[in-house]
Amino acid sequence: MESTAERRRRLLSGGANLDYEFPFRPVRSSGMYMYDAEGKSYLDFCNNIPHVGHCNPHVIDAVSRQMSLLNVSPRYLFDSILDYAERLTATMPSGLDLCLFTCTGSEANDLAYRLARAFNGGHGVLTTLHGYHGNTTFLRSIDASAPGDYSDAPDWCVRIPAPMSSEPHDPASFEVASTAFAGNIDVAVATLAARGHAPAAFYFDSYFCSDGVLTPQATVMSEGLARFRRAGGLTIVDEVEPGFARNGDHYWGFGRLGIVPDMVVLGKPTGNGYPIGAVVTRREIADKFFGNDRYFNTFAGSPVSCAAGMAVMDVIEKQQLQANAKKMGAKLLSALEETAKKYEIVGRIRGEGLLVGVELVLDRATGTHAATETRKIRNELCREGALVGITGPDRKARNILKIRPPIIVSEADIAQFSEIFNRVLSRI
Amino acid sequence: MESTAERRRRLLSGGANLDYEFPFRPVRSSGMYMYDAEGKSYLDFCNNIPHVGHCNPHVIDAVSRQMSLLNVSPRYLFDSILDYAERLTATMPSGLDLCLFTCTGSEANDLAYRLARAFNGGHGVLTTLHGYHGNTTFLRSIDASAPGDYSDAPDWCVRIPAPMSSEPHDPASFEVASTAFAGNIDVAVATLAARGHAPAAFYFDSYFCSDGVLTPQATVMSEGLARFRRAGGLTIVDEVEPGFARNGDHYWGFGRLGIVPDMVVLGKPTGNGYPIGAVVTRREIADKFFGNDRYFNTFAGSPVSCAAGMAVMDVIEKQQLQANAKKMGAKLLSALEETAKKYEIVGRIRGEGLLVGVELVLDRATGTHAATETRKIRNELCREGALVGITGPDRKARNILKIRPPIIVSEADIAQFSEIFNRVLSRI
Repeated sequence: MESTAERRRRLLSGGANLDYEFPFRPVRSSGMYMYDAEGKSYLDFCNNIPHVGHCNPHVIDAVSRQMSLLNVSPRYLFDSILDYAERLTATMPSGLDLCLFTCTGSEANDLAYRLARAFNGGHGVLTTLHGYHGNTTFLRSIDASAPGDYSDAPDWCVRIPAPMSSEPHDPASFEVASTAFAGNIDVAVATLAARGHAPAAFYFDSYFCSDGVLTPQATVMSEGLARFRRAGGLTIVDEVEPGFARNGDHYWGFGRLGIVPDMVVLGKPTGNGYPIGAVVTRREIADKFFGNDRYFNTFAGSPVSCAAGMAVMDVIEKQQLQANAKKMGAKLLSALEETAKKYEIVGRIRGEGLLVGVELVLDRATGTHAATETRKIRNELCREGALVGITGPDRKARNILKIRPPIIVSEADIAQFSEIFNRVLSRI
Repeated sequence: MESTAERRRRLLSGGANLDYEFPFRPVRSSGMYMYDAEGKSYLDFCNNIPHVGHCNPHVIDAVSRQMSLLNVSPRYLFDSILDYAERLTATMPSGLDLCLFTCTGSEANDLAYRLARAFNGGHGVLTTLHGYHGNTTFLRSIDASAPGDYSDAPDWCVRIPAPMSSEPHDPASFEVASTAFAGNIDVAVATLAARGHAPAAFYFDSYFCSDGVLTPQATVMSEGLARFRRAGGLTIVDEVEPGFARNGDHYWGFGRLGIVPDMVVLGKPTGNGYPIGAVVTRREIADKFFGNDRYFNTFAGSPVSCAAGMAVMDVIEKQQLQANAKKMGAKLLSALEETAKKYEIVGRIRGEGLLVGVELVLDRATGTHAATETRKIRNELCREGALVGITGPDRKARNILKIRPPIIVSEADIAQFSEIFNRVLSRI
């Protein structure tokens, strides 16, 4: 009798990697929870795909209704693609007025590069040291976690430390961090120039999730980004993790940085599970691109994907989920800080709103990564009925729990999570 | 008052290009038809996205039911991804045993390149002169229709004529065409070698749709492909247009070529409008890739996408749509040939099953493209209530009507299409 593991190897090889080392098999989900076949519940503090809750009935209704009515490619004329673009851009700073729809965040990040190249003629890319922006051939070529070490990176890509990440155990003053970040930008631009490349774009996630969930003070990036722009480069902010009101104070993660990017990339939470991505950008950038190129994506911006995207924004608005994210984010942070007082393994806690990184360390003074314990704690949390993610710049010894619940999370959910988290830590 | 055209420019720039020059605005669709707000019906002989019919209730039910139950990323354990992979690979020749799921055909074609590189260490790509394989940065770089002429193509990409396309007005004998194709492969491999590149992969659509809808006799490609394989290259067959029983005799378009590709790429019709793509390949290729790399795609192979994919295959099986494609394909071809007898503008007709290209020419002897008339005829067909596509190797003067109806098409639909087509041609 073939086991599930054997069957997976036979049909998927190493694809569709699982989060857990033991068989965790959800069979249904609803709101904040997944459930297994025995009816045991798992509080989801991990996923931003079911952004307004697992199996949200409003989104499902909208998708089902539209699927039964009309589901065609955007080669045909319908208004919902315009209504949705209007609604999305209305949440953005003035100037970010156009949408190019895709099916995934990967497709959007990939397309953003061509928009940048068409606009400024540059070829060079800056990313952060551990930035992850998707799975296409281009995006893998700028990703430090792809096979081949740094020296194999294409010569038109330079990776720089995320702001404030250079001295993790003695947070520099904002001025020192700002100077360091601006200096890193200068070096990167000069490095590209020495290799014969003008800068096309700088990709970064507004929470620097893959660099360890960092929330640098707004002013830290200003001077560096200003210098990058003076060098002709465009900024591409990846909102696949932080986007859609998760921050609480702002609808988009970049709001907390006080910046207006040249392009904003949307992905995971956009359709609450329906595959939607987008690039939101400025008119002059889109016009320059379409002056000489074209972009067609069969399923992107279809009436069904627009219905899904619109329904997600409806729910955020009607249920006042941005306010919820702000309020619950504060409660989550203080609950985690209470936990840190009790358990030495909890190091620094960083985050804003409902996206928080919890460092786990063997020693707070040295900050030595508690990587084995991090994996163990995630597994134990699941066994006890709570799901969290893992991230961290040290890919072989990740030691940061990524806490990113659906933004419908309630005070009771946070209390329950906190109770489980404390219980698990008490046994480690 | 802002017009729709102005609003589109404001919100989408040149994105989401429309098929028609006049406002064609479908508001609902069902089976073989789209309908506008006045209730006028449009017989869809253009789209392979609603592969088993617009708004197919079986697919909608499956998607709606699964959306209400569980919609998570494949980081969690569930069986439907395995059941679907099992079912897909069961339709393939032995050896094509594994699936890597994506959301779009573009993502799948993009991933296939990395699989090839990981397997054979090559870098070089062969495509046909006018092959189109998707919208990522990598795929645009191998696409002749992208900005920049051929000389700007990366030096690791060589484009060769599609088989039998070199002498369009005097179809060569199979042996001559085979010799020509094999010679083109040799030249391409030698060209890559002279530039220091080993061949990674040869991409082609099994119907060569963008090269003009070509259905070369099976033996024509054998010798060339054998030589390409001896040079170490892998074959990637793009089934985004022909796949899923459209051929009639075969479930996959490549079946008619009597070949077993190294990779098969699926897209558009896979989920009848739900965004699904996949690479189906051999164990050793997938294992080599996953030995050193990873691939994660949030929405790909989710329980909902598997439900959609499975439902499409259910409908094809239960309604015996492969047999329907064979029978209706023959009727479509003979109806078109009857039309050709009456109207001089109809040149050669090529196709098999429910994927047919109809050349429109100013003069049958010279084959001069009737490009203006082709656009006009498509527009007139729409006004009269029938939708068709346009393709052709000459991108600035496309002269081939691409006829690709949902595979549920009936004899009455073909009669209706034929009546409209003849009526429009009689006025040109």
